[in-house]
Amino acid sequence: MPTLYHAPLDPHSRFIRLAMAELSMECDLVEERVAERRREFLMLNPAGTIPVLVELDGQVVPGAGVIAEYLDETRGLVLGERRLLPEPPSQRVEVRRLVNWFHQKFWAEVAEPLLHEKLYKLSLSPAEGGGAPNPAALKAARANLRYHLAYVGHLVARRNWLAGDHLTYADLAAAAHLSAIDYMGDVPWSEQNAAKEWYARIKSRPGFRSLLADRIRGMPPAAHYTDLDF
Amino acid sequence: MPTLYHAPLDPHSRFIRLAMAELSMECDLVEERVAERRREFLMLNPAGTIPVLVELDGQVVPGAGVIAEYLDETRGLVLGERRLLPEPPSQRVEVRRLVNWFHQKFWAEVAEPLLHEKLYKLSLSPAEGGGAPNPAALKAARANLRYHLAYVGHLVARRNWLAGDHLTYADLAAAAHLSAIDYMGDVPWSEQNAAKEWYARIKSRPGFRSLLADRIRGMPPAAHYTDLDF
Repeated sequence: MPTLYHAPLDPHSRFIRLAMAELSMECDLVEERVAERRREFLMLNPAGTIPVLVELDGQVVPGAGVIAEYLDETRGLVLGERRLLPEPPSQRVEVRRLVNWFHQKFWAEVAEPLLHEKLYKLSLSPAEGGGAPNPAALKAARANLRYHLAYVGHLVARRNWLAGDHLTYADLAAAAHLSAIDYMGDVPWSEQNAAKEWYARIKSRPGFRSLLADRIRGMPPAAHYTDLDF
Repeated sequence: MPTLYHAPLDPHSRFIRLAMAELSMECDLVEERVAERRREFLMLNPAGTIPVLVELDGQVVPGAGVIAEYLDETRGLVLGERRLLPEPPSQRVEVRRLVNWFHQKFWAEVAEPLLHEKLYKLSLSPAEGGGAPNPAALKAARANLRYHLAYVGHLVARRNWLAGDHLTYADLAAAAHLSAIDYMGDVPWSEQNAAKEWYARIKSRPGFRSLLADRIRGMPPAAHYTDLDF
């Protein structure tokens, strides 16, 4: 079975877990603490980032964006009309644009600061920058989140799924990032009904079960995290 | 003719200019000052980033990564054996891994801080964060640059080009980022002969001429910038 090096609340890893589930692809999940800069892991991916996929034949595929393209090219055609990166060039542009939106923009403006302040700082000493969350950073990230959630609502009010008529990588990227924030209870779902309805649809897909089963030691999920009718 | 919204020293824009030249693709270059957040430009790319390609039929393709995939899919096959994103899955993984290395890691650790400190701060008022370069930021970016240049040297000492036997998007991404830094005279070429030899080869390609002709008002290029035998 292939191996995926990941971390439970890492949105980029969650994106690949969702993609593999849509492709009915099984793999061994191995948690990697990238901050430890483990030598064997850096041999797999010199950039030191997760996720990293390792195939049975030894092929190493590092990074969420690279893995998504690789999975589409090596396994994506079996989905036919439900391909996660659809065939027409204009649709591929829109799917990739939105994937990058979440992996880069949402990550930098919302997910990374919230995860850093609320989760990663817990495992750092004061000398390493650990400690209590910075209220100004939390406030800024939550303000950015409202803007991103409104953008999701804007898109799904006009389309069935984020990038068009079908579920694509765009939905999986958005849901992966939002799900990590939702674990910590930070998503104001009641403010955006269209976005909430879209998230309820994607949350009920079989591939989401593994994400909803994740638990972080010392930090239980928000009460509604596993609720499909939240 | 298609239009490319770009900025002269922006490495992500330079990457696409080099790719289009390898594809013998002509386009109108339009300089976009993203800091101005021009409304018409945000309609093209809500993320507000460059480069953005606009085709004659109106198709908008935003972002260096998305444009590169799009160009490969719509025009790349004409290059045959010289395709910039080669056919075999393992080579595609390696090319994309290295493209992301430069667009994300090199950008964050070297190119963005050097461009910000030495160029972009010139156009900002003190209240906006403008002013003289921060020596500590310059020192850190230059230390990171040595490490990246050694990585380029390590790769090209074992391969003909960065990702293997042929010129690919990986070389164009690396050269695009290094060329922007080289304009400012910050690349210690004499420390890495293999990397220097590789850069001399790519610098002499016809597609590089347009980059070597760029001039920033008030900031002439380093003396060796246009020299093919530097």
